[in-house]
Amino acid sequence: MRTSIATVSLSGSLTEKLTAAARAGFDGVEIFENDLLASPLTPEEIRDRCADLGLSIDLYQPMRDIEAVPEDEFARNLRRAERKFQLMRRLGADTVLVCSSVSPLAVDDDVLAARQLRQLAELAQEFGMRVAYEALAWGRHVSTYDHAWRIVERADHPALGTCLDSFHILARGSDPKGIEDLPGEKIFFLQLADAPLLAMDVLQWSRHHRCFPGQGGFDVAGLLRHVLRTGYDGPLSLEVFNDVFRQAEAGPTAVDARRSLLVLQESVGVASLPAPVVPTGVAFAELVTPDAEPLAALLGALGFARTARHRGKPVDLWQQGEARILVNTGPAGRRDRTGLAALGLESPDPAGAARRTEALLAPVLPRRRAPQDVPLDAVAAPDGTELFFCATNRPELPNWLTDFEDLEHPAEAPNVHRIDHLALTQPWHHFDEAALFHRSVLGLEAQQSVDVADPYGLLRSRAVTNADGSVRIALTVGAAPTDDTVHAQHIALATDDVVAAARRFREAGGHLLPIPGNYYDDLVARFDLSEAELATYRELGILYDQDAHGVFRHCYTHTVGRVFFELVQRDAGYRGYGAHNAPVRLAAQHAAKAVTGG
Amino acid sequence: MRTSIATVSLSGSLTEKLTAAARAGFDGVEIFENDLLASPLTPEEIRDRCADLGLSIDLYQPMRDIEAVPEDEFARNLRRAERKFQLMRRLGADTVLVCSSVSPLAVDDDVLAARQLRQLAELAQEFGMRVAYEALAWGRHVSTYDHAWRIVERADHPALGTCLDSFHILARGSDPKGIEDLPGEKIFFLQLADAPLLAMDVLQWSRHHRCFPGQGGFDVAGLLRHVLRTGYDGPLSLEVFNDVFRQAEAGPTAVDARRSLLVLQESVGVASLPAPVVPTGVAFAELVTPDAEPLAALLGALGFARTARHRGKPVDLWQQGEARILVNTGPAGRRDRTGLAALGLESPDPAGAARRTEALLAPVLPRRRAPQDVPLDAVAAPDGTELFFCATNRPELPNWLTDFEDLEHPAEAPNVHRIDHLALTQPWHHFDEAALFHRSVLGLEAQQSVDVADPYGLLRSRAVTNADGSVRIALTVGAAPTDDTVHAQHIALATDDVVAAARRFREAGGHLLPIPGNYYDDLVARFDLSEAELATYRELGILYDQDAHGVFRHCYTHTVGRVFFELVQRDAGYRGYGAHNAPVRLAAQHAAKAVTGG
Repeated sequence: MRTSIATVSLSGSLTEKLTAAARAGFDGVEIFENDLLASPLTPEEIRDRCADLGLSIDLYQPMRDIEAVPEDEFARNLRRAERKFQLMRRLGADTVLVCSSVSPLAVDDDVLAARQLRQLAELAQEFGMRVAYEALAWGRHVSTYDHAWRIVERADHPALGTCLDSFHILARGSDPKGIEDLPGEKIFFLQLADAPLLAMDVLQWSRHHRCFPGQGGFDVAGLLRHVLRTGYDGPLSLEVFNDVFRQAEAGPTAVDARRSLLVLQESVGVASLPAPVVPTGVAFAELVTPDAEPLAALLGALGFARTARHRGKPVDLWQQGEARILVNTGPAGRRDRTGLAALGLESPDPAGAARRTEALLAPVLPRRRAPQDVPLDAVAAPDGTELFFCATNRPELPNWLTDFEDLEHPAEAPNVHRIDHLALTQPWHHFDEAALFHRSVLGLEAQQSVDVADPYGLLRSRAVTNADGSVRIALTVGAAPTDDTVHAQHIALATDDVVAAARRFREAGGHLLPIPGNYYDDLVARFDLSEAELATYRELGILYDQDAHGVFRHCYTHTVGRVFFELVQRDAGYRGYGAHNAPVRLAAQHAAKAVTGG
Repeated sequence: MRTSIATVSLSGSLTEKLTAAARAGFDGVEIFENDLLASPLTPEEIRDRCADLGLSIDLYQPMRDIEAVPEDEFARNLRRAERKFQLMRRLGADTVLVCSSVSPLAVDDDVLAARQLRQLAELAQEFGMRVAYEALAWGRHVSTYDHAWRIVERADHPALGTCLDSFHILARGSDPKGIEDLPGEKIFFLQLADAPLLAMDVLQWSRHHRCFPGQGGFDVAGLLRHVLRTGYDGPLSLEVFNDVFRQAEAGPTAVDARRSLLVLQESVGVASLPAPVVPTGVAFAELVTPDAEPLAALLGALGFARTARHRGKPVDLWQQGEARILVNTGPAGRRDRTGLAALGLESPDPAGAARRTEALLAPVLPRRRAPQDVPLDAVAAPDGTELFFCATNRPELPNWLTDFEDLEHPAEAPNVHRIDHLALTQPWHHFDEAALFHRSVLGLEAQQSVDVADPYGLLRSRAVTNADGSVRIALTVGAAPTDDTVHAQHIALATDDVVAAARRFREAGGHLLPIPGNYYDDLVARFDLSEAELATYRELGILYDQDAHGVFRHCYTHTVGRVFFELVQRDAGYRGYGAHNAPVRLAAQHAAKAVTGG
């Protein structure tokens, strides 16, 4: 099906919006009137610009407060509409959106509404135009899609149809099944938007909090299925009002938007994409750094051994159990402070995984970083992290480890056996995008989003995981641009005995994040812990949590650049990440930073 | 009355919060449990820190999910409470807040709730503590203040009272008059918060959108009057959860908080402050600049004459009609780009106005900038703008103009007769604070807040005015830190003939902001304007608006540094500021900036 996006969904000038929509591969746009008014381009120039970019203008929107008004008012409305039809002719647009009236002049009279809309359609027809009438969720007398349809049916004019908008329908709690009773050819347009499930005034919800399908809580796919059963064959168009998108760069938002439509089309069976290949584990995490020494000291104290070195590049492999950390001191490392640059994900079918990510618009990275390297399938995530699809030690497939030359052997009794999870800080404009990417592109499952109180602002955090928990990624974002030395990325290492692991780390010269004594006084009040157990946690700065499934114990290392490590002991099916303890950990990190001046 | 603030209302570490509260002059604090848990200070150290700062600890909060639960669960709750009473003893706090239960274990049984709260109070009494029971608006079975009070009354224990919270009471729409039926000595605590009137889930409203009294839409003063009639003599305490305050520096937030309490106390007659002295006009606007030339050219083209020069400093007075602009090239100007640094407001009683601002915690500036200067009363507004209270040409009072030496005469037929309004960009953390300041400190009236769509994000704008409109200040803030070369401050100059003024400006070499032709095509559709009128507006970039009271025509100059000018013709009582046109103006400014690369 053809895809379209409303210019109001993107940030910037009209020219920037059109360019971003075209680059992301949309077939057409809805032109929002205010975007046109504010543009220095004439309608003819906008038409030509769209043509050059390969975009059709699928809708001009909106006309407001047209119908069910006294005759003298309606005469004025018709004159106004005539001006707009003239404009649309110059623009080369043939369909206009008319929203159900919110005017105090409007009366509750379907017969009058139908008669006036018929007159409008008559005028539209003279210009070769069509009118798509839509029920706003907060329309004065017409607020549901079936009511709008009854009026269109009564008006009975070939140039008058209805426009369906998933936001207005689902926000009102209307049953979308009734859509199937509409004749598809009378559905002139379909606008799609999702939204988080908020209990708030529907107008505010609509104007500030819409998001792309799959980013919110609406069953947009279910609605689309009903629409398709009518025989509708117009474009699928995204109309999203969102405070964050208004500020974000148009290019990435448009890519995100089109990805959401591709996934939506796949889910209703009208597009076929390479199937998701769910990762089955974490092969490695790659850190870049201008100075390997602090990281080497930290990894050594954690019990990692430098087991191998890349044959062609300054990259060391540090290993312990199945946990593998690459330390890269090449050119990328010198560009920035120490940070997490790449993830290797074990994949049952690396090439298939890469095909899906490419089909879903993720930038594909060169398969070989150097001519002699083993070819590896890799893409960039929305936050810029490189994702490698790996087949570690599987003889039938290229093995990234063959690029490495062995050095020392890892410890036989490791403290740490694998990477439990990775916490990735997201650019604040792209949090919903990141969750959609990891879910739809990688096939991971997104968990509930939680708010975490940092002393200097609220953070939002949302985990994406595979079914057996062998891949867990916690996506975190601040309420606004924040200090990234505290809101750093981190790597959580799984251990069977966090007490032993913490002690060995400390004895080897590592610095554990100190946790306030008050936290432990509170633990006693909340849980049945023995004095000895508590004393140990207090001594080592180990945090404690419990859910319905099990117990979680964890502690933190100091931070190097933008990265720190966590040691976690996840017992008996505990599912979370210690979110209850996060405010204490964040305050402790702020305090540690204040002390070191780091 | 004593004033107090909950630590959760302020940003930062516990130490930062306590310091900010003390510096702002609060008598005490409520310690929020999570702030204590996250603090490296022991309870004894926190007690001592508060004592050193002159702060009492008026409340420890909260205990949750205590009452109306099965006996084994309640036994656990009592053990938990005992730990907290031990902690409070170390802290030197004697009152604990207990919130009505939200636990799924809680049953709807007032008799059980009363019996268990009585047992809790019995335990509290052994420690010399008191329990203040509060109805959360979303409590499972107890969600209104009168219900909470009936349970407290039934429990009938001297160590058990109730806590009233204006948010929970007013958000539920309860009638606060019933508070007067409570005995004052059983109201153990009073928490005050305001909130904007939002139709949203009450829990989310409470956790993210509370604000200080006078910043929202609640009648907090009305509620307080009812409480005072009970004989309540405990502290007035602010408990505010707000996403913005969480990120803002604690110091200014605490000052803002205490100012709101002072105004609240004044409004219910328990504090007496110097009366507001409402300004009666704008005496001058002062611009600082590192280079006077571009400003001089702009002012000259607008028809201003350089009428006087300061006797001791590099400050020129530019005048036209009653519009006066000071251009300061002194040290302040060299610190930054060209910008608006100060406002002179005509005041019937400059000294009285300064006394009120000082009583309401605005920083008072030195009365003389130099020894030979006329003494002038001046304070700093929250955004740092200096406010001078002036008595221009009033013989009985010091006249700032006597510091100036006359140069040329102003034009006899001025284009501009006075300053219509000033638009001041506010730091985004302090928008509500700025409105409260201008209203309560200066005695101006705050108008409705409006959202304005900029191409790169939403702005909020709110005007404050005096009764006859001779002082109008539009406060504007972006959704996040924004580009201040576009979101600049501006000075709007009143003219009786905007067409003549715009033409004279252009003929004198000034650059008018070009407005897109599409805007004028839309004007024709919206308003009955003659072709000639429209052609003139189109030629000059004049924008047009109409409200129920009259017509508004306006156009804009180019921007110098962070300042531009607007020419406005406000006919027949039009009350607004052309907000409908603001998106077009903002887009045009972005476009102009893209062209000049400025």
